[in-house]
Amino acid sequence: MQFTIDATQNKARACTIKTAHSTIQTPVFMPVGTQATVKALDANDLLSMGAKIILGNTYHLYLRPGSKLIKKFGGLHGFSKFPNSFLTDSGGFQAFSLSDNSKPDENGIMFRSHIDGSKHYFTPQSVLDTQYELGSDIMMILDDLVALPNTKERIKKSIERTTKWAKEAITYHKQQQEKGIGVHQNIFAIIQGGTDKEFRKMSAQQLCALEDFDGYAIGGLSVGEPNQDMYDTVEWTTTFMPENKPRYLMGVGTPEDLIENIHRGVDMFDCVMPTRNARNGTLFTNFGRVNIKKAMYKEDALPIDEECDCYTCKNFTKAYLSHLYRAGEITYFRLASIHNINYYLTLMRKAREAILENRWEEFRKEFYEKRATK
Amino acid sequence: MQFTIDATQNKARACTIKTAHSTIQTPVFMPVGTQATVKALDANDLLSMGAKIILGNTYHLYLRPGSKLIKKFGGLHGFSKFPNSFLTDSGGFQAFSLSDNSKPDENGIMFRSHIDGSKHYFTPQSVLDTQYELGSDIMMILDDLVALPNTKERIKKSIERTTKWAKEAITYHKQQQEKGIGVHQNIFAIIQGGTDKEFRKMSAQQLCALEDFDGYAIGGLSVGEPNQDMYDTVEWTTTFMPENKPRYLMGVGTPEDLIENIHRGVDMFDCVMPTRNARNGTLFTNFGRVNIKKAMYKEDALPIDEECDCYTCKNFTKAYLSHLYRAGEITYFRLASIHNINYYLTLMRKAREAILENRWEEFRKEFYEKRATK
Repeated sequence: MQFTIDATQNKARACTIKTAHSTIQTPVFMPVGTQATVKALDANDLLSMGAKIILGNTYHLYLRPGSKLIKKFGGLHGFSKFPNSFLTDSGGFQAFSLSDNSKPDENGIMFRSHIDGSKHYFTPQSVLDTQYELGSDIMMILDDLVALPNTKERIKKSIERTTKWAKEAITYHKQQQEKGIGVHQNIFAIIQGGTDKEFRKMSAQQLCALEDFDGYAIGGLSVGEPNQDMYDTVEWTTTFMPENKPRYLMGVGTPEDLIENIHRGVDMFDCVMPTRNARNGTLFTNFGRVNIKKAMYKEDALPIDEECDCYTCKNFTKAYLSHLYRAGEITYFRLASIHNINYYLTLMRKAREAILENRWEEFRKEFYEKRATK
Repeated sequence: MQFTIDATQNKARACTIKTAHSTIQTPVFMPVGTQATVKALDANDLLSMGAKIILGNTYHLYLRPGSKLIKKFGGLHGFSKFPNSFLTDSGGFQAFSLSDNSKPDENGIMFRSHIDGSKHYFTPQSVLDTQYELGSDIMMILDDLVALPNTKERIKKSIERTTKWAKEAITYHKQQQEKGIGVHQNIFAIIQGGTDKEFRKMSAQQLCALEDFDGYAIGGLSVGEPNQDMYDTVEWTTTFMPENKPRYLMGVGTPEDLIENIHRGVDMFDCVMPTRNARNGTLFTNFGRVNIKKAMYKEDALPIDEECDCYTCKNFTKAYLSHLYRAGEITYFRLASIHNINYYLTLMRKAREAILENRWEEFRKEFYEKRATK
């Protein structure tokens, strides 16, 4: 992975990441393609919107269709036909959250499949093996997650265990690369610690001392804490992260969250929000959210957003989308998802332009002003 | 509507129908867009496959979003953005089949909405008023449907009532056209009579005597009778239908049904089969049906049909479609529907070429031979 900083403005950064499959300009939002597809879309839909990187979920792909099968098809790129980059998570978060009874121990996480109840065990090494088979451009390492609230002792233990696993992961990855496995794949560590400043500092310092990682993520946020706590935690944590590597805030968030965290030094984001909210009737615009369920849109002859250049806005009215939503038509899901993904990708492109042109503060101000006019 | 016969071979016909919105070459299959969209697809998907006419369901559109709303958007064409032709049914069939308690009387059909239980009354005139608002290029008239099996007396009454309503409909339509309403819209009558030769003859003769209709449909088939009975009934009924007008077999059917009924003189077809079966995992090919649920396709690196030029076959493997189906991904529904609709449209184009080139019998033979090789 090549990483260059193209411009900075205070903490906000515009960078370029080159992987084996694409050149990614940051700030970047990565649409979530849990099961080797972004829900309701296909590879060409994403290409036509300019997506340079999407996310795949290791837990899901490991269970179905299986990473060995995906490897036979040339990894996620060959299987899904999306030729740009993939980032895959470690699977740990979903083993923790989707499995009825997941159990971490010193060496990994035991869990039962949410599909068929079968028993599986993830280790720092095994989740990399799976990700080698998936062929993702950026692999995330296994971390030890704890349910919150929890005792300080347990949280401290989880941070220590996460660091231990990170060391095992990077050692294993270097060994594998020496054997010719995963040579074009990059590996990111995940900083934990909730909203506790000391824990975050501890986790960041321990992990960032392991200099062989290609990038660092901030995990465990956007899990119900007040927005300001998330922003404060990110602002604090980024001060302990190296400048010369990408910074990825996992699972975040709303358009406002993206702007605020770019402002605090984050380069990469992913979230199910644009696709999930689309399916639930919420559409994002520069002027705030449109709830297509509202009766006022039944006869609205305008597109979702007159300023938007997406396929849906160029072709269809809110009245038609309102009808498709009410009628439960599958067509709605695709059209709404295209709009929301395009909104997120466009917002990131505009944020990047603003940073490059040294007008980030004005951009951020205008972002909020437009929303206030609605 | 302009109607010309381009070629015939025995009973098989290749014709051209010109409506205000498109030039339709027959034999033609009309994809079903019940609620102003073909399920899982949008207007551009249909255009890119060369669809010149699709169907809309008056019953559904009348109830939601309402034909008055659709009229405000320039009819079905403006609302859905599909610029080619629409055929709309009368709504009678669905009032009969979807409503808990529909009641026909001498003047129309009372029914309750399957959406909210509200009470409505369709008459031969009111269903045309609705279709004027929908702006469809071809409107179907209201017919009196009876549950089968039934007494000969009741069936005879339904045929007489259908003829009475047809007379009322054509009279009303001419009056409306004189007032400038529906001047570019065409009207088809529907021949009923089950698989009874005498009833079919009676219905065909009575309706075809009303010469102002723009075309004639054969209704009430493909409702569970043996295929051969359907074919025999169509073969018999078409002998009583005028040559100089389009012949439409409603709600039919499988690829085999289309070939057999083209052979017996039918020009137009519609059916939910390609889209519904796609969603249920059945994909049509020249070599027969592919059930994507089968385990054998999990690792199949070939497209659904190597001979197929559809978007799905040009881009994706059976293994990927198998995965999307098993994972319940919405993306599957669109890709599978594109393939099946494209298969039906392509089959009709090839059938037309064969008739034009005077090799219909060879074409029909090859159609079955390819299926037998599988």
